[in-house]
Amino acid sequence: MNSRCAACKYLRRRCPPDCIFSPYFPSNNPQRFESIHRIYGASNIGKILQQILPHLRAEAVESMYYEAQCRLADPVYGCVKIIYQLNQNIHHVHNQLANIQAQIAFYNAQMHGNNQIQNAELPAFVGFNNSLADQGNAFPHPAPPPSIRPPWPM
Amino acid sequence: MNSRCAACKYLRRRCPPDCIFSPYFPSNNPQRFESIHRIYGASNIGKILQQILPHLRAEAVESMYYEAQCRLADPVYGCVKIIYQLNQNIHHVHNQLANIQAQIAFYNAQMHGNNQIQNAELPAFVGFNNSLADQGNAFPHPAPPPSIRPPWPM
Repeated sequence: MNSRCAACKYLRRRCPPDCIFSPYFPSNNPQRFESIHRIYGASNIGKILQQILPHLRAEAVESMYYEAQCRLADPVYGCVKIIYQLNQNIHHVHNQLANIQAQIAFYNAQMHGNNQIQNAELPAFVGFNNSLADQGNAFPHPAPPPSIRPPWPM
Repeated sequence: MNSRCAACKYLRRRCPPDCIFSPYFPSNNPQRFESIHRIYGASNIGKILQQILPHLRAEAVESMYYEAQCRLADPVYGCVKIIYQLNQNIHHVHNQLANIQAQIAFYNAQMHGNNQIQNAELPAFVGFNNSLADQGNAFPHPAPPPSIRPPWPM
């Protein structure tokens, strides 16, 4: 009988009926287990899955696979680089919003406070037309998540 | 002599002069190695560090420690949840920007195309004053990084 899951095939072991891996690592996708195994190791994957309620395990495997792919592609920063870049983007868009809101306040004052104005001289707003794509890709430090702050200065 | 690094102490082994762990896991911070070891395992940490240039290894350990802390705090989603939430925030702020830019275009038309207007009736813009904090915390799927797209539908 050759019904071992991809994990048990990779680990060259018998696939027991209650195998913790088999629901998430079908035999027709060996690369999926191999990727995740190279980063976390089979033992740690099993331990993490054991502590998770069964209906959440598929999501856990997806997120671990995602992180593993990122780490394989970028061994230095993994998906933490993405967190940093997204935070940079948010910071940039917030600056854009603040500038535009100031511009709207100016227009409001012109339209409702001074109805005689014909050719208003607009104030200069910095960064209004900057594209998000202009953000640099340097990675000094990852950005803080809601609860866990890294120990280095932000 | 008791100069073993935190990793070698944890693994109950001699700490060789060229220990791959010792520069990043000082003996006075055993929790740091323990966290990262619980997620990646000592063998995988060593393998990842070996393939990275020495001057980038400290950053790699920081990012792995960060991911490990996230995974210990949230075994199901780890730091992928943060990526999803940041993408949600960016999507929301982009919508805000689009609405505000439409509002500015309206003001521009009023001020420069119709100078006689006194009490302009403004169009309705949705979400202008919504706070970023209003974003939900549901986690259907993590968002796509620049290069690695997860296999599920976005």
